[in-house]
Amino acid sequence: MKKNYAFGMIGLGTMGRNLLLNMADNGFNVTGYDKNPQQIELLKKEGIRTNTTGTVDIKEFVQSLKVPRAIMMLVPAGKIVDAVIEELLPLLNEGDLIIDGGNSHYNDTDKRFIELQKKNIHFFGMGISGGEKGARFGPSMMPGGDKKAYEVMKPILEAVSAKVNEEPCVTYIGPGASGHFVKMVHNGIEYALMQMIAEAYELMKVGLNMPDEEIGNQFKKWNNGKLQSYLLEITQEIFFLKEDGDKDILLNYIKDEAKAKGTGKWTSQASMDLQAVTTCIDASVAMRDLSKEKELRLAVDKIYSDATNIDIDKNEVLKDLEDAAAFTMKVIYAQGMDLMQKASQEMNYDLNLADCAKIWRGGCIIRAAFLEDIYEAYQNKPDLDNLLLDKKVSKQIKSTVNAARSIIIASVKAGIGTTVFSSALSYFDNLKTGRMPSNLIQAQRDYFGAHTYERIDKEGVFHTQWQINAQP
Amino acid sequence: MKKNYAFGMIGLGTMGRNLLLNMADNGFNVTGYDKNPQQIELLKKEGIRTNTTGTVDIKEFVQSLKVPRAIMMLVPAGKIVDAVIEELLPLLNEGDLIIDGGNSHYNDTDKRFIELQKKNIHFFGMGISGGEKGARFGPSMMPGGDKKAYEVMKPILEAVSAKVNEEPCVTYIGPGASGHFVKMVHNGIEYALMQMIAEAYELMKVGLNMPDEEIGNQFKKWNNGKLQSYLLEITQEIFFLKEDGDKDILLNYIKDEAKAKGTGKWTSQASMDLQAVTTCIDASVAMRDLSKEKELRLAVDKIYSDATNIDIDKNEVLKDLEDAAAFTMKVIYAQGMDLMQKASQEMNYDLNLADCAKIWRGGCIIRAAFLEDIYEAYQNKPDLDNLLLDKKVSKQIKSTVNAARSIIIASVKAGIGTTVFSSALSYFDNLKTGRMPSNLIQAQRDYFGAHTYERIDKEGVFHTQWQINAQP
Repeated sequence: MKKNYAFGMIGLGTMGRNLLLNMADNGFNVTGYDKNPQQIELLKKEGIRTNTTGTVDIKEFVQSLKVPRAIMMLVPAGKIVDAVIEELLPLLNEGDLIIDGGNSHYNDTDKRFIELQKKNIHFFGMGISGGEKGARFGPSMMPGGDKKAYEVMKPILEAVSAKVNEEPCVTYIGPGASGHFVKMVHNGIEYALMQMIAEAYELMKVGLNMPDEEIGNQFKKWNNGKLQSYLLEITQEIFFLKEDGDKDILLNYIKDEAKAKGTGKWTSQASMDLQAVTTCIDASVAMRDLSKEKELRLAVDKIYSDATNIDIDKNEVLKDLEDAAAFTMKVIYAQGMDLMQKASQEMNYDLNLADCAKIWRGGCIIRAAFLEDIYEAYQNKPDLDNLLLDKKVSKQIKSTVNAARSIIIASVKAGIGTTVFSSALSYFDNLKTGRMPSNLIQAQRDYFGAHTYERIDKEGVFHTQWQINAQP
Repeated sequence: MKKNYAFGMIGLGTMGRNLLLNMADNGFNVTGYDKNPQQIELLKKEGIRTNTTGTVDIKEFVQSLKVPRAIMMLVPAGKIVDAVIEELLPLLNEGDLIIDGGNSHYNDTDKRFIELQKKNIHFFGMGISGGEKGARFGPSMMPGGDKKAYEVMKPILEAVSAKVNEEPCVTYIGPGASGHFVKMVHNGIEYALMQMIAEAYELMKVGLNMPDEEIGNQFKKWNNGKLQSYLLEITQEIFFLKEDGDKDILLNYIKDEAKAKGTGKWTSQASMDLQAVTTCIDASVAMRDLSKEKELRLAVDKIYSDATNIDIDKNEVLKDLEDAAAFTMKVIYAQGMDLMQKASQEMNYDLNLADCAKIWRGGCIIRAAFLEDIYEAYQNKPDLDNLLLDKKVSKQIKSTVNAARSIIIASVKAGIGTTVFSSALSYFDNLKTGRMPSNLIQAQRDYFGAHTYERIDKEGVFHTQWQINAQP
């Protein structure tokens, strides 16, 4: 076996294999490890041109690496990551570097960082987005943690990453678990964008009775306009894929029960802990969960089949749907950016939000033309309080918000639950009011629980004996 | 000092003091402990008729209790609960009983149960609802954990609880932390109901320009109808409370920044873990968080002040608002019940949902006429899959859903974010469809991440090379 590899990959599933092959293509001297000999065979086969190979022997794998060693794990998040670290530790020297390239929870990454630091092992967590194809030909990568360790890996990571205007879609994100946190928010945004597209599909298919081909063409049109994005690109392709000899598209054979690996849920839960507001992501997580309750939905469907659905006008809806989607998409990104800003403050990540938007412009699942505007907005004003305050973005929002209103009205009339569209608009309508009705909530809390309230006319904390004084 | 007290209370804040006085009024021989001598003085003063007293000496307190001892803690959730237990343990005998009557997180209750069981100390967690007044004159109580220990306390708890049709609003909820879990869901429902009332207020005040008195009268009218509930009862009172010599109601001086103690957030987070759908609660938590961002809202308000708001018709809206609120209220309870059912299955709480509804009919903050219907629904069918499947409830839902549509359309037109109303309707619209557009989400996930999908026409798990085959 060849020695002195510059880099080693643990976990040769699709992602690990593809990223390793990507490195080899870029001229790096790399090797892989997996318990499963079949994965080694696949790696050898796919990496035949660059002579890329691996081993099922972890000791041999570690010894074949140049010291200080650089090892990335691409294994399922959770206990497996800890098990791999456990297995590695006796084989490593102080000063070696481990990278967790999976979708680990940021709390786990924090713990591992502290544990490994004690042992003088460098460690960083890095989110990788782009799916199989991204890993193979250029992903977007979000490394966070040990900065010096990142500097060691920087040449490899920049070489293999996606490029936009010749700039790499990877940058040092920040200390601690910030890389995994930012990747988590990326995935939360992804959930919401996917749910938004699904709701537009539903509105066209059920609300407007449009044939699949027409729907596909609509998405294709959108992808050539202000909604240009990877998710729309693949969506329109999906609407044209038929299996051999079939008249119907494959999509119509797929069960309407959406699975999830948990990063969307983590985003919403973290958001609640940080008191950020990501209603579009929350709603998307909920809709995936609801989709799984097929039996229940069929039972409820039976009971309420006579619930009045009002007809809606096709031309009216189609005219507005693209703008409504553009509005919703912008709110989704705004909520995600807001969550990152709050995390940055609360957890001292010191995030550069412009850089985060910059490396999302290519390689990753949520890449979209709109990310250029986000990048610009945070370059102009790094401490921008909310994306919707940016001048260019607010112009776009103003020019599309009425379309969003029309679409929600149409879907409410038609009995189609456009949850993410609605969540985006009601977030916006609450955000744009200097006065919310939450004074009533404070009064109620003080009434029943003596939780006290603050006043607009004087400083201090107040409590009222409401019941005794109120005379309704 | 008198000895052989039947019961001791630790933590003599408003809730602890009031519950203790309630017990004394019911003829039980009780005492209290608090580090703060002022709380003891207050207890003595308020309990003068029954000669209720307490001590600042925990040793004296413990020794004054009849063995096996029964001690309840009513202290802030979190580390303080552990500190009190720590302090108590050396003073207790095996077989003594500790009750945590606060709003502890169910995970903490589980841990404490296990720790105390090792030491042969009986323990149960009990949610108490009703605020100060409830504690004093009859709360709703949700005890879960050690059943034998509950049996010891049953006579006291039944005596002091609220009564509905002479039945006590307390019952053994189930094993483990089920009592605290059910109380947490109670609070989640409370958040959503409060947000719903706040949104109706906003629609009347800002959307319809109604004077406060008229709004108050509207809530008063609602409280005499199908929306009859404690929260509406106090809401209408709030609309008539003026401070001495003031022309304006106190409500208008209260800041529109809603605080929260975290139980709503816990509910949403638990719900996501259990893959239950509680969008109305999630949205209420988010709106409390958004309300705190006053500065940001004012800044956004400035930019978007010219966003078109369409006029809405007052009579049209008022006619429908009560029905829309009734619809939304029912969906909120349905989501809460669904979460409890999922928790019951997942955590083996073996909850009797009819009993849960039964003890919520009196004493607690979310008591409402509708709880009779919920009680009836689960009595008729204990394993009812969803409250909206019940015959009586579905009739009510059908007769009000179109009003909900009208109200959401009106608020969308007016630019008023009725988040909970919208969340309830879009949950309903998704629940009542046997076919969701989530097949597209599965196709996208398989396209970019090879996450595979299931089909409606054959068994198995499938993966497609979408890109190669799709020809858009």
